[in-house]
Amino acid sequence: MPSTPTENDIRRAHERILPHIHNTPVLTSQFINELTGALLFFKCENFQKTGSFKMRGASNALFSLKPDQRLNGFATHSSGNHAQAVAYACKTAGVNAYIVMPKNAPKVKIDAVKNYGGNIVFCEPNETARQEACAKIIQETNAVFIPPFDDLAIITGQASCAKELIETHADLDYLLTPVGGGGLAAGTALSVKYFSPKTEVILGEPKNVNDTYLSLKAGKIIPVSQIHTMADGLKTTVGKLNFEIIQNHVKEVITVSEDEISRAMRMIWERLKIIIEPSCAVPFAALLGRKSFFKNKKVGVILTGGNVDLGNLPFV
Amino acid sequence: MPSTPTENDIRRAHERILPHIHNTPVLTSQFINELTGALLFFKCENFQKTGSFKMRGASNALFSLKPDQRLNGFATHSSGNHAQAVAYACKTAGVNAYIVMPKNAPKVKIDAVKNYGGNIVFCEPNETARQEACAKIIQETNAVFIPPFDDLAIITGQASCAKELIETHADLDYLLTPVGGGGLAAGTALSVKYFSPKTEVILGEPKNVNDTYLSLKAGKIIPVSQIHTMADGLKTTVGKLNFEIIQNHVKEVITVSEDEISRAMRMIWERLKIIIEPSCAVPFAALLGRKSFFKNKKVGVILTGGNVDLGNLPFV
Repeated sequence: MPSTPTENDIRRAHERILPHIHNTPVLTSQFINELTGALLFFKCENFQKTGSFKMRGASNALFSLKPDQRLNGFATHSSGNHAQAVAYACKTAGVNAYIVMPKNAPKVKIDAVKNYGGNIVFCEPNETARQEACAKIIQETNAVFIPPFDDLAIITGQASCAKELIETHADLDYLLTPVGGGGLAAGTALSVKYFSPKTEVILGEPKNVNDTYLSLKAGKIIPVSQIHTMADGLKTTVGKLNFEIIQNHVKEVITVSEDEISRAMRMIWERLKIIIEPSCAVPFAALLGRKSFFKNKKVGVILTGGNVDLGNLPFV
Repeated sequence: MPSTPTENDIRRAHERILPHIHNTPVLTSQFINELTGALLFFKCENFQKTGSFKMRGASNALFSLKPDQRLNGFATHSSGNHAQAVAYACKTAGVNAYIVMPKNAPKVKIDAVKNYGGNIVFCEPNETARQEACAKIIQETNAVFIPPFDDLAIITGQASCAKELIETHADLDYLLTPVGGGGLAAGTALSVKYFSPKTEVILGEPKNVNDTYLSLKAGKIIPVSQIHTMADGLKTTVGKLNFEIIQNHVKEVITVSEDEISRAMRMIWERLKIIIEPSCAVPFAALLGRKSFFKNKKVGVILTGGNVDLGNLPFV
């Protein structure tokens, strides 16, 4: 594969994962449309299997391989939604999932992975320990590594989300997603380029972890320097492959404060009556902060997931 | 109309309100099915206009009248979901809504009614003051009274909810709803009788406000003696018309503790990723408390609404 997936790569990925994912619903809110003056379409990946869009990329990575290449199972290191997605995709395929998690990971996340049948390998809570533990497990088991975001199979899998939204909601002026590692952002940018070229992609990023914003300005990747944000899915530095695609196909990154994230999240809960996690309130917060810019526009917003600790809500 | 609505009454009510309501989605959860051993279908009235099933009855009561009978607007007394539903139905019809609310009603509920364009008339927080204030407003304005539950137009409107569920999910063994004033319970019992006679209706009621449970035992209405429950939509004594229908067509009332309500509510939030209010966790709590009874059964559960104060959650 070349470093930029083609239209056909995305079509094939979507067909491949269709039996394993939900074509998630798109919700609207009259109240929010009146408040913003825009016409908003929320693509609800909180209703996706395992509660986030990560199931798209993980199942694409897994099912891209032939059955005899899957026999030794799959491994990854993650304490978040990617871990759950890999565990569940492996359960679907009937193979082992080895998930390296920091030993201080929240119990709720450990339980979720266990619940999907994942084998958890605990490690010290730092990047080096994670990678070493994962490499060791792969050496011992011959499992295949499924990276969390900077990977062509992951990008094309995540691209299926925007593709679905475009198929039912043509002529969007803008499509908004959050950006963390950038797998969804890159996949979305490519789906828009191929399937809805008049639409522009805008990314939302927490002000506190604004590496993609800074990287686009600098023309090179500027790693995250601090990770204090409630948007726990977006604490990662943007991936290399993803950054290249974002540089070429994304219009802008809008950054938002923690307060804006919390208020946007609460509005979605109250008005759409759905549970979303802080990370996916970020692009909606970006829109709320720029109402005049989005006025009278048709805007798609990908709500990326709903795995949130109800005992620790920002607005309670 | 006779005191029991006919099959045709319900069909006509449903047709009448179709342009004004959502045919709400039905959600399922693999996790919850595995946990309970039953096959559960959740009818999501939290996604209904104004956030609850009350919009069905209110719009049926309003649009049952000819346009020239609607000109003076409509009045009701309520501090809950019925108030919002009447206000919104009136907005839809372009007529005035007069909503009598106790002067200590929560700001969030007052704001919701204002937001739908309702004219709020405040009164002292007791039943007599409510009724007097409502009678006075009706005398002054010639508005038409829309009762909250004990009324044939309300019952047939609420009946449309079970009708929709039955149309897409045939052969349910049981259909569960909460019971407060009993409008939804009675309407559900009638829809089941006409459209799915093999299904049995079971009601969930808080142990702390178990008037319908006691009334069925006694063979006559036993008014509520205390109202200390988090299920704020279910604090009312069952209505006379509704009780008669419930007596004839409901299999059983199961009562549940406050703790059971809170746990059931949290499970719906975490697993379905949707916001429901405590009242509608009551029938699901009833099912969780009787897993062996419902095992291997196909069960519909009406989730009645999603209007909840996020600053005051039972499980946080």
